[in-house]
Amino acid sequence: MKGIDSKSQFLDSWVTPRFTQPASFMRAPFATDDIDIALVGCPFDLGSANRAGTRHGPAQIREMSRLIRKVNGATGVAPFSLCRVGDAGDTPISPFDAGQSLEDAQSFYADLHARGIVPISAGGDHTVPLPVIRAIASTERPLAVVHFDAHSDTWDTLHGNRYNNATPFRRLIEEGLIDPKRLVQIGIRGTLFAQDDLDWPVAQGVRVITMDEYEDLGRDQVLAEARRIVGDAPVYVTYDVDGLDPVYCPGTGSPEPGGLSMRDSQVIIRGLRGLDVVGGDVCEVSPPLDPAGHTALNAANLMFEILCVAAEAQAARPDR
Amino acid sequence: MKGIDSKSQFLDSWVTPRFTQPASFMRAPFATDDIDIALVGCPFDLGSANRAGTRHGPAQIREMSRLIRKVNGATGVAPFSLCRVGDAGDTPISPFDAGQSLEDAQSFYADLHARGIVPISAGGDHTVPLPVIRAIASTERPLAVVHFDAHSDTWDTLHGNRYNNATPFRRLIEEGLIDPKRLVQIGIRGTLFAQDDLDWPVAQGVRVITMDEYEDLGRDQVLAEARRIVGDAPVYVTYDVDGLDPVYCPGTGSPEPGGLSMRDSQVIIRGLRGLDVVGGDVCEVSPPLDPAGHTALNAANLMFEILCVAAEAQAARPDR
Amino acid sequence: MKGIDSKSQFLDSWVTPRFTQPASFMRAPFATDDIDIALVGCPFDLGSANRAGTRHGPAQIREMSRLIRKVNGATGVAPFSLCRVGDAGDTPISPFDAGQSLEDAQSFYADLHARGIVPISAGGDHTVPLPVIRAIASTERPLAVVHFDAHSDTWDTLHGNRYNNATPFRRLIEEGLIDPKRLVQIGIRGTLFAQDDLDWPVAQGVRVITMDEYEDLGRDQVLAEARRIVGDAPVYVTYDVDGLDPVYCPGTGSPEPGGLSMRDSQVIIRGLRGLDVVGGDVCEVSPPLDPAGHTALNAANLMFEILCVAAEAQAARPDR
Amino acid sequence: MKGIDSKSQFLDSWVTPRFTQPASFMRAPFATDDIDIALVGCPFDLGSANRAGTRHGPAQIREMSRLIRKVNGATGVAPFSLCRVGDAGDTPISPFDAGQSLEDAQSFYADLHARGIVPISAGGDHTVPLPVIRAIASTERPLAVVHFDAHSDTWDTLHGNRYNNATPFRRLIEEGLIDPKRLVQIGIRGTLFAQDDLDWPVAQGVRVITMDEYEDLGRDQVLAEARRIVGDAPVYVTYDVDGLDPVYCPGTGSPEPGGLSMRDSQVIIRGLRGLDVVGGDVCEVSPPLDPAGHTALNAANLMFEILCVAAEAQAARPDR
Amino acid sequence: MKGIDSKSQFLDSWVTPRFTQPASFMRAPFATDDIDIALVGCPFDLGSANRAGTRHGPAQIREMSRLIRKVNGATGVAPFSLCRVGDAGDTPISPFDAGQSLEDAQSFYADLHARGIVPISAGGDHTVPLPVIRAIASTERPLAVVHFDAHSDTWDTLHGNRYNNATPFRRLIEEGLIDPKRLVQIGIRGTLFAQDDLDWPVAQGVRVITMDEYEDLGRDQVLAEARRIVGDAPVYVTYDVDGLDPVYCPGTGSPEPGGLSMRDSQVIIRGLRGLDVVGGDVCEVSPPLDPAGHTALNAANLMFEILCVAAEAQAARPDR
Amino acid sequence: MKGIDSKSQFLDSWVTPRFTQPASFMRAPFATDDIDIALVGCPFDLGSANRAGTRHGPAQIREMSRLIRKVNGATGVAPFSLCRVGDAGDTPISPFDAGQSLEDAQSFYADLHARGIVPISAGGDHTVPLPVIRAIASTERPLAVVHFDAHSDTWDTLHGNRYNNATPFRRLIEEGLIDPKRLVQIGIRGTLFAQDDLDWPVAQGVRVITMDEYEDLGRDQVLAEARRIVGDAPVYVTYDVDGLDPVYCPGTGSPEPGGLSMRDSQVIIRGLRGLDVVGGDVCEVSPPLDPAGHTALNAANLMFEILCVAAEAQAARPDR
Repeated sequence: MKGIDSKSQFLDSWVTPRFTQPASFMRAPFATDDIDIALVGCPFDLGSANRAGTRHGPAQIREMSRLIRKVNGATGVAPFSLCRVGDAGDTPISPFDAGQSLEDAQSFYADLHARGIVPISAGGDHTVPLPVIRAIASTERPLAVVHFDAHSDTWDTLHGNRYNNATPFRRLIEEGLIDPKRLVQIGIRGTLFAQDDLDWPVAQGVRVITMDEYEDLGRDQVLAEARRIVGDAPVYVTYDVDGLDPVYCPGTGSPEPGGLSMRDSQVIIRGLRGLDVVGGDVCEVSPPLDPAGHTALNAANLMFEILCVAAEAQAARPDR
Repeated sequence: MKGIDSKSQFLDSWVTPRFTQPASFMRAPFATDDIDIALVGCPFDLGSANRAGTRHGPAQIREMSRLIRKVNGATGVAPFSLCRVGDAGDTPISPFDAGQSLEDAQSFYADLHARGIVPISAGGDHTVPLPVIRAIASTERPLAVVHFDAHSDTWDTLHGNRYNNATPFRRLIEEGLIDPKRLVQIGIRGTLFAQDDLDWPVAQGVRVITMDEYEDLGRDQVLAEARRIVGDAPVYVTYDVDGLDPVYCPGTGSPEPGGLSMRDSQVIIRGLRGLDVVGGDVCEVSPPLDPAGHTALNAANLMFEILCVAAEAQAARPDR
Repeated sequence: MKGIDSKSQFLDSWVTPRFTQPASFMRAPFATDDIDIALVGCPFDLGSANRAGTRHGPAQIREMSRLIRKVNGATGVAPFSLCRVGDAGDTPISPFDAGQSLEDAQSFYADLHARGIVPISAGGDHTVPLPVIRAIASTERPLAVVHFDAHSDTWDTLHGNRYNNATPFRRLIEEGLIDPKRLVQIGIRGTLFAQDDLDWPVAQGVRVITMDEYEDLGRDQVLAEARRIVGDAPVYVTYDVDGLDPVYCPGTGSPEPGGLSMRDSQVIIRGLRGLDVVGGDVCEVSPPLDPAGHTALNAANLMFEILCVAAEAQAARPDR
Repeated sequence: MKGIDSKSQFLDSWVTPRFTQPASFMRAPFATDDIDIALVGCPFDLGSANRAGTRHGPAQIREMSRLIRKVNGATGVAPFSLCRVGDAGDTPISPFDAGQSLEDAQSFYADLHARGIVPISAGGDHTVPLPVIRAIASTERPLAVVHFDAHSDTWDTLHGNRYNNATPFRRLIEEGLIDPKRLVQIGIRGTLFAQDDLDWPVAQGVRVITMDEYEDLGRDQVLAEARRIVGDAPVYVTYDVDGLDPVYCPGTGSPEPGGLSMRDSQVIIRGLRGLDVVGGDVCEVSPPLDPAGHTALNAANLMFEILCVAAEAQAARPDR
Repeated sequence: MKGIDSKSQFLDSWVTPRFTQPASFMRAPFATDDIDIALVGCPFDLGSANRAGTRHGPAQIREMSRLIRKVNGATGVAPFSLCRVGDAGDTPISPFDAGQSLEDAQSFYADLHARGIVPISAGGDHTVPLPVIRAIASTERPLAVVHFDAHSDTWDTLHGNRYNNATPFRRLIEEGLIDPKRLVQIGIRGTLFAQDDLDWPVAQGVRVITMDEYEDLGRDQVLAEARRIVGDAPVYVTYDVDGLDPVYCPGTGSPEPGGLSMRDSQVIIRGLRGLDVVGGDVCEVSPPLDPAGHTALNAANLMFEILCVAAEAQAARPDR
Repeated sequence: MKGIDSKSQFLDSWVTPRFTQPASFMRAPFATDDIDIALVGCPFDLGSANRAGTRHGPAQIREMSRLIRKVNGATGVAPFSLCRVGDAGDTPISPFDAGQSLEDAQSFYADLHARGIVPISAGGDHTVPLPVIRAIASTERPLAVVHFDAHSDTWDTLHGNRYNNATPFRRLIEEGLIDPKRLVQIGIRGTLFAQDDLDWPVAQGVRVITMDEYEDLGRDQVLAEARRIVGDAPVYVTYDVDGLDPVYCPGTGSPEPGGLSMRDSQVIIRGLRGLDVVGGDVCEVSPPLDPAGHTALNAANLMFEILCVAAEAQAARPDR
């Protein structure tokens, strides 16, 4: 990895009060070049058949991420010292053309990937992992995934459509870009459309950890299980905020009571240190449903946790 | 017109407190048969490239319309005594397929129209007039339109798309279903994408009354002008709530300061009495942007005003 | 009138910042003795058959009235210099017994009245004028009333009940405590339960000024008319905040679009200077419907305007 | 039980997007006939001496229950397949007459009960169990009750009144309709009016599980205890949402910090499977205190959990 | 003026949907060099003794200004075509040192001024004009000012302090940087701390137009008067959003009912075309008091109107 | 301790409904004399460099504390029976002079202390403990402190300033008024400005219990540890509401996900019974960030818990 360019470092709240200056993700500089990790907005919400508004997610997450400081208090990781981190802006969006938007987003991520830049995204709805993983995975190198969510998102179609926030992990498994045996889903719960909603992922070998099992195992065991599942494969971390209990995510489309806490989520993500993290995202923040930004604040903190483990992995890569 | 069936009459708040019972539009009975006027929800919002949420409009307008009573205090019109009015539910929506949704909505309205039922709709975004007018107008019988809005909605395309909330009146003029010389637009204002935004409608003969001209003429003169323009043609009344000043419509996607008041709007719509009103709609209410429902309350009142003039026209039709 | 006791004067925001100290009405001292004017909360809401919450009105109006300063900028009246003004607390309330509550409130006001103290109240719902006027008027000395409202509040019964926020002025006319020929109602509008809603008050000689007539006459003429109607009788000023357009009163139970502005209301109340004002109230603020307090802020300002004209009248009374 | 009439089945969100169509409880059809279970609104709030607004509870719970799907993901129970479920509308309410309202509500429930229909209600305040249990219990067949709440609701009177949201379980025990030895109260906590607040219920043999004891026992043990207490008696499940910690119920009148989580509540209610559940309710949702509906969403989910155990019990009854 | 550098042009919403990309003022590029007009945030709020929060103003105004398009619909002015406009970020702020903050802000503006760049600022509280005008005016070239506000802001001290949002125009007149005879104040109203609040400015020759006089004169006459007062002097336009009626600015510290409308404000500012506008600001937006951003939306539109007249003036300067 | 003066007792909600009468802390009488414990507002927020608004904390905490009743349901402690408790109003504040404000507040507390009155305060920001402890501690009698917070608040300076909400415990240790070895901090977490943020307090012997250690130890062990640390020294309890997880304190300036629950906090404070509690505070409630008052409700409950342990200690003092 090239030397950290001090110029590209983030706006230090120690010096510049947090309420000042335009909002970038975690006060990182706006940059797409000469960075190791890109914080990316993907304001795609044409994959949602339920409550609206995730197109506004990146803007509000940027705003609330002003409150993030430089160093992870629990782990001591200082991502902005380990890597050059930039706010790469938003992917292009065609607001009336979901297919075009997904293609354009994929190209955007592919360009970052080609330059060795690890993407950490703020959605947008939970279709977002589709273009990201299409850009950074290959059938030769399918990814392991740690997936926090209330829903498995492995339906075949929703309202007759194959590419939306209910289907991305099915598509990515079908396309050979995710290894289903290395996909672990944490926090699954809620009412179902049908009793066999989870049959398909289980049949593929996906490790589905419902909230019931989560409680039975306990958090430490869940973490151990997640690490066992993903093993030494390149790992992508995707967090649909509705994996959280709705008190932590009032601003999301499909809240399901009885979910994860922020504490649980923070500890588990921190527990992924040492894995070969190659990207991540936090999706399904709908600002119109939470104008005061509590959901976005939590999302910003989850992005930061993912950034920390990704930065350690990126910093450790020998060819950089 | 057939005798009013008392069974189909609305839930009288004099008897049943307004906070009780499931919400229908203005407490009308849920009915699609044996009615003269259908109050219809059209939760289509795939035509919006700006702020999200109008798919939730019909639900909140139903809820806030509990506050509407039976009789128009200003005109004395009692629409539920003049006509059988029903809440016909929502049009079908394919949440991932704008084209299919517009076709399905059009079929829904065509079925009502075939049975002589006048539709008054709650959007959804301002694409809604497209399927409605396609269903109720014909090239032999193009409609006059009284159009309240901040925007002319006559662009050719938006983000490369031809069917969205910025284009419906261009399409309908092109399709010969609206007579541009009988289209009057009231409340036009706001920042423009380009200086020639309004050239096309003016060239077609549309009467565009900006807020500047509105003030110059005064409300009485505007009303007289609107009546002159539409003449004795069948008239459709469409109200994009952003025609109102944003203080009256905090819950809308594209608010433009400096707009109409509710008082202005009520007086003008009341002034359309005697015209051959064949339908109407109120669009662009975005409940997530106004959870307390102030915008929806105004929208419900505007729907009621349109209902009153439509009910008089419907009651006056000899063949009913 | 006795000399102003400087000790009883209000908390001057020039000295004590407005955000500090417990909230009393307009920062007046808490006092029921040795005062000329009592600011009273009457948190009665058992007279409302529609949206709930006016029991919390006095608390929020106290809170928002922190923003009121000492002197009326338009008229120069300084009520706290003219009179000793106290926050007399709230009337007693029996939360499950409307009748008892109205009796207790009446006794509270009667005690103030017996001591020559003029009451200016914050409701509660619009039943509040009933106990106030019962306490301060008599059949020998019926009151004139300037009444701002969307609704005439002269129904005989509502849901079978005779004492609620839809009936107070009928009761008070029947009881001979208001002279109907000296009752002027300003701002009347909205949908009606029946076409003859306004027949009874008009038949009694009440001067009902609808919003249509308000516009026809113009504000100056309405003011002149109001002064003519009330003449030299003792005058009570009652303001149901739904007389305002809902943009000024989002926190009220029965909002009716197309209403008065705060500017109109301020100018008219100021125009009542010189009349024999003997009391007033502002009612129907529902804080749960407007937690940020915009409605209560307007209510506090309306109370201040009523206070100003009442203080001039009180200061001018020779026997004080 | 009669065969499930497919016509009466609920609106499937798999087919009809959740944001569309008028709101019924959990998208059930509006029906009072030919149903096995009635979802009922009881918008009674004349029993509350504290913060207002629960009269609006049924409307908002209907709206938020759009998000409920068909099948319980944790237990696999599919209530709409087991029973014919209808939204039976709201009970009648006399907004100025608490006694009449309670009588009318009781008649409404008695009529359902006479036809073998199990009621599951959305309040209204927590007086609601009074008319329900009066309608469905008898001194010969007193009910067991699983009662979630911060408060015991067994005062003799409140502000001199015997029938309100602080007294229902005392009245029902006195009337012999609840067996106090089979009444278990979970979540009790908060500040008290007097140190002996809980003496009466404990003296009657009510099993009061405070939050302190809840933690000491642990959730599994609490569930076992609840099952032991209610035994094989017919069981009613009543959930005052303030049993939850206020983060789960910002929209309630008497929030008490330090309460139950939704997860706890879901697991316990699911643990009641196999009991002879004969009805249930969720009360004290005050929408004006939570316009975005987070409390109502939780209430809708609690209703669904109660529905699941009630549907299994109803489906198992031999005479149906 | 140098040729417009297309690269520095703003993000066109016609191409890039308004909900995407990081928020700059009106989607202008972040730039401090090679620009003609700087949009500047000044998040100073240490000058407020009343309700808090204006430090967050620039952030929310940036966010809401996404809704602004390229061209002024009323005047046809296209500021981004006339001038190179940049978002210059925020001035430095020392959050515990008001004096240092004002010095640093002044230096920031002085640097822009030295390079011929016209500043248009978003506050911050209404102390902001102090450092701006100190930077761009001189005793040889005192400015004329068009000042929209409910308050004259010409007190000598507030709570013993000389430099705060109640005093800037007194200081600037004393310092000879504003010509009091060319200062016109529009919208003055509200309760006063003392009856002589306005004596000082009037004595200096300031033209104070209260709301009463505003109505008497009418808007056209006020505009003519404002133009007469400022004459051909260099003009600064300062807009304290509490000049607006509170319905337009719920998010401000000192709202005063009975104020200006957005329509009035837009028309008057547009009427300043042709004057030698050298800068402007919009202040006193407090986002915590209006999280949904309605106040900030209006503020963004007011900034745009000021930008339009400033851009015409800047484009017309011969030496550029 | 002198006999409890019944006149000074609080407003009993059993008699006076909670929604009525002006708001004092927990309905205590307004009094500064003849009391044993003073509930004090300290609306100081000039020590905050982040999100604004805590100056409004005392007002909203008073309002929400209406919901507190007389007796602690978990411990049976009845503080208003043990001690004479008064709402002593707010400390003086100079809104433009932090130093003067801190001096004035200190004098206010010193006066209470001189009269043997124990202060329990509602902030304001977390600078508040500085003037309180300066007033009630001495180098001869340094205090032990139980400190709930996400942040250690022991920086040397923030933005060059030594007296603000990031530094009070460093100053008080330096001044010899807090014994660092008897200072226990609970709930510490969140992102850091630098990796050595916690080195200084640890070096002084402060017992810093991060959330990680909190979980490792368990709540009982943390409580035992806290009791061990403070020993028999006079103890001050300070609660920065951001010690709570943000779901419990949406209205605070620096929320840090993953924090304490209200249940945890209540149990620990109750566990401090028997200690020599000499004062306490709850700080950092920002009402503009939470207008519905959920944070303030929790703060009021935390104040009540501190009041209970302080009242027992005060009642036990022999010389009273």
